Amino acid sequence: MDTVLRSRSRTVTIGSEQPFCIIGERINPTGRKSFAEQLRGGDLSTVTVDAVAQVEAGADMLDVNAGIPLVDEPELLQSMLRTAQEAVDVPICIDSSVIEALEAGLSVYEGRALVNSVTAEDERLEEILPLVARHGAAVIGLANDETGIPETAEKRLELARKIVSAAGDHGIAAADVVIDPLAMTVGADTEAVTTTLKAIRLIREELGVNMCLGASNVSFGLPQRHVLNAAFLPMAMAAGLTSAIMSTAPPCVEAVRASDLLLGHDPWGARWIAAHRARQAAAASEQEAVAAR
Amino acid sequence: MDTVLRSRSRTVTIGSEQPFCIIGERINPTGRKSFAEQLRGGDLSTVTVDAVAQVEAGADMLDVNAGIPLVDEPELLQSMLRTAQEAVDVPICIDSSVIEALEAGLSVYEGRALVNSVTAEDERLEEILPLVARHGAAVIGLANDETGIPETAEKRLELARKIVSAAGDHGIAAADVVIDPLAMTVGADTEAVTTTLKAIRLIREELGVNMCLGASNVSFGLPQRHVLNAAFLPMAMAAGLTSAIMSTAPPCVEAVRASDLLLGHDPWGARWIAAHRARQAAAASEQEAVAAR
Repeated sequence: MDTVLRSRSRTVTIGSEQPFCIIGERINPTGRKSFAEQLRGGDLSTVTVDAVAQVEAGADMLDVNAGIPLVDEPELLQSMLRTAQEAVDVPICIDSSVIEALEAGLSVYEGRALVNSVTAEDERLEEILPLVARHGAAVIGLANDETGIPETAEKRLELARKIVSAAGDHGIAAADVVIDPLAMTVGADTEAVTTTLKAIRLIREELGVNMCLGASNVSFGLPQRHVLNAAFLPMAMAAGLTSAIMSTAPPCVEAVRASDLLLGHDPWGARWIAAHRARQAAAASEQEAVAAR
Repeated sequence: MDTVLRSRSRTVTIGSEQPFCIIGERINPTGRKSFAEQLRGGDLSTVTVDAVAQVEAGADMLDVNAGIPLVDEPELLQSMLRTAQEAVDVPICIDSSVIEALEAGLSVYEGRALVNSVTAEDERLEEILPLVARHGAAVIGLANDETGIPETAEKRLELARKIVSAAGDHGIAAADVVIDPLAMTVGADTEAVTTTLKAIRLIREELGVNMCLGASNVSFGLPQRHVLNAAFLPMAMAAGLTSAIMSTAPPCVEAVRASDLLLGHDPWGARWIAAHRARQAAAASEQEAVAAR
């Protein structure tokens, strides 16, 4: 099942036979105090910097979130989306829990967006799915509901099934629903990752839909987060995860591209070897430049 | 199911509820020309160096192999085992395809060794299992037979079952059989890793025995092998692999210890955090030493 997203001129396909889709997590003021202050003051320059840097580091798509307390989120999200679309030409994941912000965001987006997100709560499904359908977008469905985040993988599968079914009722194909099986931090619950991996396998086997995780959550509060994230991603990919909202730090991107190769989504390592040669060439020209000074 | 190995004074347990068992791969002349030349000339100093370095880098056990063409392998393996046991106090994996060498090795080994290896070939089973039983050792069983390495995971499971059953006939418990589900290079076959992962899952579910892989094989012939190996190990561990004969390069060891934490085998990250603090302390005292010069 393929989920097709588009920017102004580029198409990205999320699918189990595709290379993994890396969605840069950084354009999000949550937990970034100075970025939040800049945005509050109308300074969007960091959006441009972060958009370019993440795409250069290997992001296939970008997540854009404007969630700052007491700010006009619909207006800010529109400005941030306009800025990001000027800076780079990759599809965007429009990220808000406020329906008016999603609506405002979709109205300025050029292409086919991924709406982040709906949950399995009846009210949210009824609010957000018609909006997604009207804009011909795709949507991330979080496997939680009014009662919170299910502890078992089986219950997350059940909520995923409910979301896919509700989307169908609104004319949204299963291929355009990307389920988030939810990754909690392993520092708070030693079973967190095994439950997430089991949920991924179940959803893959039973529903066959694409999946997306906020992958950095697993390492929250622990030292050497990039190393932990870089070990989590191969596990999740082998279980069936097809995309993640994640850090584009080199260890994380390299772990994903290595896993693409290992799982047969980079035949004969063509992409892996090309990336290696590009790094070697860059290092060589860097050395020449230093020598020429 | 726990496989218990011993050196002179230390015990290592391989098991699905244990931290992963890292078996250092380095004391092996295959593909190491100058090491092979040293050994041929009776110089065992590299054995000592490699034994200490691998244990310092995080190896829980060491593999020792003396396979050099036209050399008296039983005698050389004995010397190498004596040298390794003098240098470090960790259990050893006695690695040879020559039965006389395994026998000679076991006769000088102090503790409970892991014999590497038997295959599912009738003749090998009949030769090696009595030796393993007589010495009260544990044994690695490779899931291949007279016809070669099976292409399917199901056939590898079948051969694993045959080895466990034959071991039982010789009085060797299933807990003392460690199955190697075989990792081939992904550079030669894009399905190599997915087949291995499937074999691991099947053997874990159907037989519940411990497993060990030569993990570095997957990246043979490709650039950035440590990054590929460091992505492969988390996948294999999540599927049920409990030990590997592998490189102790930092990316590989860190990927294993990160995966232990993620999979709930390092509760609350106690070991992960302790290792992080030890590195910080080492870095700080290094800086002090530099400053004091």
